[in-house]
Amino acid sequence: MKKKLNVNNFTSLLHPYPATLITTMGDDKKPNIIAVAWITPLSANPPIVMFALRRERYSYKLISENQEFVVNIPDYNLMKEVLMCGTYSGKNIDKFELTKFTKIESEFVKVPKIKECIGNIECKVLEIVDRKELDHVIVLGSVLNVEVEEELFDKHWDLTKLNTLLHLGGNLFTTNINEIKKEKV
Amino acid sequence: MKKKLNVNNFTSLLHPYPATLITTMGDDKKPNIIAVAWITPLSANPPIVMFALRRERYSYKLISENQEFVVNIPDYNLMKEVLMCGTYSGKNIDKFELTKFTKIESEFVKVPKIKECIGNIECKVLEIVDRKELDHVIVLGSVLNVEVEEELFDKHWDLTKLNTLLHLGGNLFTTNINEIKKEKV
Repeated sequence: MKKKLNVNNFTSLLHPYPATLITTMGDDKKPNIIAVAWITPLSANPPIVMFALRRERYSYKLISENQEFVVNIPDYNLMKEVLMCGTYSGKNIDKFELTKFTKIESEFVKVPKIKECIGNIECKVLEIVDRKELDHVIVLGSVLNVEVEEELFDKHWDLTKLNTLLHLGGNLFTTNINEIKKEKV
Repeated sequence: MKKKLNVNNFTSLLHPYPATLITTMGDDKKPNIIAVAWITPLSANPPIVMFALRRERYSYKLISENQEFVVNIPDYNLMKEVLMCGTYSGKNIDKFELTKFTKIESEFVKVPKIKECIGNIECKVLEIVDRKELDHVIVLGSVLNVEVEEELFDKHWDLTKLNTLLHLGGNLFTTNINEIKKEKV
């Protein structure tokens, strides 16, 4: 039997989503980290990623200032660090200190990336699509550089070796089974 | 050790994503179904969903004509049907016949929804954001009605009872473990 939900709760139906950590840096050169699950590829060629971002977030200010960001892919072991980055604001706290993550220099952007993550995607803002009546803007990023942990990836993540961090909502998480099914039609 | 990838392969880093089936219907009143993984909430209040859609897809024509769609959430048991919907074009084939899915009438849109899916989100197009140089457009949909299988959902999916369909890319799929972890910071 199906039941109706309040329409504002539709977001839960689309989860669990892979969690990502987005690093940003504003004019003061202090890097910040936000947890973002509402992210998806938009275009493969040219390579463009898009994600939803609240205007109230500190990283919205930082991205607006410097027009750059890095998408870092955490695995299941980094659940606590991801929740930290999603709970506190970079306005008041240094999230690299908080999480003990290691900054590494990016190749194409000034924003550093996170060493402990299994993949990093360096991006330059292509456009911020802002519709005033919505509670998030859409950030479109041109992908400039992509790196992955080599033993975990071959055309796709090797889920037999890897537990991705899947966010269910709030402080709830899960992960994938360690099996890949190849389907035929 | 990290290795570099061709930037066009960044899309694989963001998977596995929950697969969705989007139903559409054009002026000829024949409903179609497409498989979409590049979808995410954009705004909770007002409730807005967004997804990436290729202009070449038959459903792009249908959505452009009728400005409505339904996002249907399949579970792991529907892997074959999802691959069918992602492989064939509705230009040549009736996907409801192909998959044997049951059409049920929607409440707020003319497009039918899929009975066998565990959740359905009825939407009206708010806007199609089209940047000519990108290989997909962004479809923004206002959420009008949300229904879920009641024994599988309580504020979020009950993953102890449910295997979601996670798409890794191509014809590769996986699912979640049947456990939810509550993290604290």
